[in-house]
Amino acid sequence: MQLGMIGLGRMGNGMTERLREHDHDVRTYDPAVESRTAASLDELKSQLDAPRAFWMMIPAGKITEDTFQQLLKLADKGDTIIDGGNSNFRDSQRRYREAQNKGLHFVDAGVSGGIWGLRVGFCLMVGGDEKPVQRLEPIFKSLAPEHGYSHVGASGAGHFTKMVHNGIEYGLMQAYAEGFEIIEHSEFDVDLHELSGIWRYGSVVRSWLLELLHIAFEEHGSKLDDIAPYVEDSGEGRWTIHEAIAENVPAPVISAALFARFASRDEENFAAKVAAALRNQFGGHAIKAMAEADGSEDPRSH
Amino acid sequence: MQLGMIGLGRMGNGMTERLREHDHDVRTYDPAVESRTAASLDELKSQLDAPRAFWMMIPAGKITEDTFQQLLKLADKGDTIIDGGNSNFRDSQRRYREAQNKGLHFVDAGVSGGIWGLRVGFCLMVGGDEKPVQRLEPIFKSLAPEHGYSHVGASGAGHFTKMVHNGIEYGLMQAYAEGFEIIEHSEFDVDLHELSGIWRYGSVVRSWLLELLHIAFEEHGSKLDDIAPYVEDSGEGRWTIHEAIAENVPAPVISAALFARFASRDEENFAAKVAAALRNQFGGHAIKAMAEADGSEDPRSH
Repeated sequence: MQLGMIGLGRMGNGMTERLREHDHDVRTYDPAVESRTAASLDELKSQLDAPRAFWMMIPAGKITEDTFQQLLKLADKGDTIIDGGNSNFRDSQRRYREAQNKGLHFVDAGVSGGIWGLRVGFCLMVGGDEKPVQRLEPIFKSLAPEHGYSHVGASGAGHFTKMVHNGIEYGLMQAYAEGFEIIEHSEFDVDLHELSGIWRYGSVVRSWLLELLHIAFEEHGSKLDDIAPYVEDSGEGRWTIHEAIAENVPAPVISAALFARFASRDEENFAAKVAAALRNQFGGHAIKAMAEADGSEDPRSH
Repeated sequence: MQLGMIGLGRMGNGMTERLREHDHDVRTYDPAVESRTAASLDELKSQLDAPRAFWMMIPAGKITEDTFQQLLKLADKGDTIIDGGNSNFRDSQRRYREAQNKGLHFVDAGVSGGIWGLRVGFCLMVGGDEKPVQRLEPIFKSLAPEHGYSHVGASGAGHFTKMVHNGIEYGLMQAYAEGFEIIEHSEFDVDLHELSGIWRYGSVVRSWLLELLHIAFEEHGSKLDDIAPYVEDSGEGRWTIHEAIAENVPAPVISAALFARFASRDEENFAAKVAAALRNQFGGHAIKAMAEADGSEDPRSH
């Protein structure tokens, strides 16, 4: 079927390619990509037959909001706007109401799979009304691998479940991360590339993330020498913890994983300064001067 | 090749079956299982040709120590004792030295795969000297799936890596657990059986544990109504944290996962009593009497 794809970054490009491989007629717009079929949202609209489907595959935040507001203005009654990015589900619920007020449909689609989705398919969690979701099912089913798509609930449910999915992802990644650091610092000379390799077969901890880690050890060596210990986050982990707090649900592992990412970026570590200052005050324990700590050996056993 | 299997519980039985399917000559001893080939360790010894291989597949702790000491006495020079259980790697290092003093070999084999290992193979992390490990490779390779076996290092390295493997497992399990609780307590009516189902295909969080969770939701329903919220542990998580402490390596996620298991079994929750008492003392905040808290509604939003 016909679809207008807005955003041709790594995800939007891979999804466009996968949809075309499945014989869908995908028209595209991205201000920065030459291979687009339309040079503006208006031209994109003119390339699609009503009722149209506009799929936003762009970073969450201001650019998604701006694009959504433009689409609200130019779309015709009965058209559907799909947000496939990692928008906060509360924004998606609000956009659903704004779209509804104009006689438009709005669907929130959580998309997982990263740059590998083109080949294996993207896991799709879709939220919204039955009518537009059913009409778009040929698109969803082509994007997803077999059994990898579900209409998970009402408006917002797609981005909500994708948000929690990413929160879980933080916890899984940090669990592997800590385990491999404990092995790396042990008295044993274990080849982490080989260990992550055998764990892929028959072990309880086998997973796709472990397969990726094995590839990373292959590409960067078991010491990961060329990778800085600095981990970004793009918001879904934070929102997952916000929701856990709103629901009074304890989430010690996901919050610890989120905070471990913050710690990785906290060059100053003011908390450690405070703790060192207090040990010095009550017990006379030595404090390291800044230069000394910078130049000192790793105090951890090896 | 020939092997003496000691312990015919779920794991030892599955491993014996898998080895026999691969045409190995496995003699067996278990005081409680009729299908054994030998009625005593002495008889087991008499059924094996020197140099013998005795594989202990029994619970870590006293029973493993007792069996090991018996084997130390009855085994002949050149025989090998393999511990396939979840023994602490420090015990395995000590047993290696005790065996060495008597001219015996000792090999520690970390075995992962649980009750599914019979069908898919057991992931095998083996620690010990080159000579006995190489001699036993036909056994290891039959037990493991292809690429699922490695001689990971010197004596103790097998049980050490299996210990960390299980520590990681705690973190992975708790990450899924928290995520599904956040979804379960949300405003959305998400079918957890279906959601865990689609996450198996194309999503970043796909894993074998997620496949098992999907089966659990199928067998017990998405509310898991018949499962008590009580999680045991068998030691490897504790030891992983001991090692993290010994190495000065932060492990916030694995320790939080371990403590979440303790919390699940802490019916009294004295810490919550202390915190409630303190809130009452400094702020006059109401405390619940025991009966009131027992009978009260779940205070969490739904």
